[in-house]
Amino acid sequence: MVNEEIIKSLSIKTDSKIVLLVSDGIGDIPSKQGKTVLETANIPNMDILASKSACGLTDPISRGITPGSGPAHLSLFGYNPIKYQIGRGVLEALGVGVELSADDLACRGNFATMDEFEIITDRRAGRIPTELNEKICQKLQNQIKKIGNIEIFIIPGKEHRFVVVFRGKNLREELSDADPQLVGKKLKYTDSLISEAEATAKIVNEFIKQAIKVLKDSLPANAVLLRGFAKHPGLPTMKELFKLSPAAIATYPMYKGLAKLVGMDILGKAETIEDEFKILKENYAKYDFFYVHIKKTDSYGEDGNFEKKVQVIEEVDRFIPDIINLKPDVFVITGDHSTPAILKGHSWHPNPFLLYSKYIRVDEAKQFSEKKCTFQGGLGRFFSLEAIPLMLANALKMKKYGA
Amino acid sequence: MVNEEIIKSLSIKTDSKIVLLVSDGIGDIPSKQGKTVLETANIPNMDILASKSACGLTDPISRGITPGSGPAHLSLFGYNPIKYQIGRGVLEALGVGVELSADDLACRGNFATMDEFEIITDRRAGRIPTELNEKICQKLQNQIKKIGNIEIFIIPGKEHRFVVVFRGKNLREELSDADPQLVGKKLKYTDSLISEAEATAKIVNEFIKQAIKVLKDSLPANAVLLRGFAKHPGLPTMKELFKLSPAAIATYPMYKGLAKLVGMDILGKAETIEDEFKILKENYAKYDFFYVHIKKTDSYGEDGNFEKKVQVIEEVDRFIPDIINLKPDVFVITGDHSTPAILKGHSWHPNPFLLYSKYIRVDEAKQFSEKKCTFQGGLGRFFSLEAIPLMLANALKMKKYGA
Repeated sequence: MVNEEIIKSLSIKTDSKIVLLVSDGIGDIPSKQGKTVLETANIPNMDILASKSACGLTDPISRGITPGSGPAHLSLFGYNPIKYQIGRGVLEALGVGVELSADDLACRGNFATMDEFEIITDRRAGRIPTELNEKICQKLQNQIKKIGNIEIFIIPGKEHRFVVVFRGKNLREELSDADPQLVGKKLKYTDSLISEAEATAKIVNEFIKQAIKVLKDSLPANAVLLRGFAKHPGLPTMKELFKLSPAAIATYPMYKGLAKLVGMDILGKAETIEDEFKILKENYAKYDFFYVHIKKTDSYGEDGNFEKKVQVIEEVDRFIPDIINLKPDVFVITGDHSTPAILKGHSWHPNPFLLYSKYIRVDEAKQFSEKKCTFQGGLGRFFSLEAIPLMLANALKMKKYGA
Repeated sequence: MVNEEIIKSLSIKTDSKIVLLVSDGIGDIPSKQGKTVLETANIPNMDILASKSACGLTDPISRGITPGSGPAHLSLFGYNPIKYQIGRGVLEALGVGVELSADDLACRGNFATMDEFEIITDRRAGRIPTELNEKICQKLQNQIKKIGNIEIFIIPGKEHRFVVVFRGKNLREELSDADPQLVGKKLKYTDSLISEAEATAKIVNEFIKQAIKVLKDSLPANAVLLRGFAKHPGLPTMKELFKLSPAAIATYPMYKGLAKLVGMDILGKAETIEDEFKILKENYAKYDFFYVHIKKTDSYGEDGNFEKKVQVIEEVDRFIPDIINLKPDVFVITGDHSTPAILKGHSWHPNPFLLYSKYIRVDEAKQFSEKKCTFQGGLGRFFSLEAIPLMLANALKMKKYGA
């Protein structure tokens, strides 16, 4: 398969427009009367579209590999998910809505409980309520703003979880977890894994010391455990690689963050699916690539809630004519990975994929489902990574390779 | 596609069990009234299983490549057959049932005939009977036990063939064949191909000299030709890579040897197919991965014996319910490569592949055959190398890749 350098050399700027609708975790395995969520849902608009489209199946990484949201999305955005890996800390920061810049080092944190000898007695501080977490983070932030030249940002998550962002020059991510992992062990500081990371380790450990001091009287949250240190990955942008002016519409911070990592503008403040399609319409003139992310297919899959997942897809289906009315040159509906309700989590099963454009070989698939994409889909089975070249091609945004 | 390091980092130990049934060379091309062996055989149990499974086709190496048993099996065991290559000498040693250890250097030997000027007049010593071969090997072994610190093992094969194993530290395989290849040429000694192999070459050549002395009066077998020098490949084990406790059940030494190379325990001393399934049942509690090898589909394919190959598959089919009764979490039936009866040898045609588990998308294939796997199989076409990740995934033995 060609690499991104080749795609970069072939991509050209045109006025044609691409809409990539990612219904997160949409793929399923048959579990309700032998049917999947897609096969159960009443989705007349997607089915009509399927009958005018080319369908197929995509593997986010490769067969048998269950991807996290990071690699699954990178692949779909045209970035080799083996070459580019986004560290835990960065993903977590994206998840709580932090705007990361290129110099940032991020990590995940737990508030924890330790005894007078600094022995960890609860790695989650009794799962303190989120409201208390927010207060503690505010207190920490008020007292720790900078360590040396490095700015510190402390952002609360749910319950005992938070994120720390260290912002400044020359920070490194080659750091061991400052987390003993087990109750009964002593509070742990970070170690540099390479000599170039020694200065960063000192800053992180100074942060831990100062935090403990601030938290002295905050039982049960009197310790911090930090892990998953990761630098901003500094990805080339979709503009650099594919000459696109890309924009993202999403409801969850994590996906806005992922989109931002590849240089997309984030549009609007959508809270509902309806909001998302409204924002798409309002901004349609301004960009040539739109990534629209539907979160709830995945959330209900993770909950094992088959019926609710069906309903989300039916809701999305009602907006399909609105997208068609915008007359995109290329319109793709797919998932980033599958989230089968009976597995209550991401899975390795390939994603149904539908591509609508003027220049396809329309195939035999007359419904949008895993089975039709498998057996009647003309696109066959391919890597998610190949979706961008395919979309660019169908939008006539690619030159010939060689003469 | 992901490499084994990634699979290694994702694999986890669980109680779930996998049975991989390899019917060697099972794949065929239509040759009897337009049907393949599988399409001709009466295999009701495999057909019922197919209707509850996901089917597909696997390429052992890549399209058009006919594999030997070594690379075909390595691929199926999750080892990249391009990265890991097992030398001829080692395969031959496995084939005659030698237990190789990590320091061993093995090669294939021919007894040959030479004249008084050491000119080879028959490269196969008139294809001496196997019984005579055994006697000659015994005589050689009695007189040549060690050369320097290196232990020597001489193991007879069929007719004029034998294997020599050199056991000791620092042996190298970078040696030219000690075989003139053509009648009318002079007896040949080995040359080291790199300077580090010079000491090994001396030992091998000393062996040849001593052997000729011993064989002085053994006409027509008065010379030895050695070729295919190969060291034990030192593969990582399936336990190291995939956290499996693997066991092998096979009737032929070569396949037990291949299984041993990847760290499988070899179970029982099966001589028949019935024995093999009995051994599987008896040992089912003790391991979590079982490789069961059926040799005769390949042997009859090589013989061009369509009918007998049909009968073997029908015999295997009768034991399928016994396997299902063991309730494996994942059960796969496939071949390592195809051995079409009309080709009388291995071929490049992909293998029919059937995967039964709780978490599949059951497909349209209601029979187990090349055609159904091609056109109604939901797994599509993939590399044998991807079979292990797919089996691990379906046994829930893999973590998510990335967050």
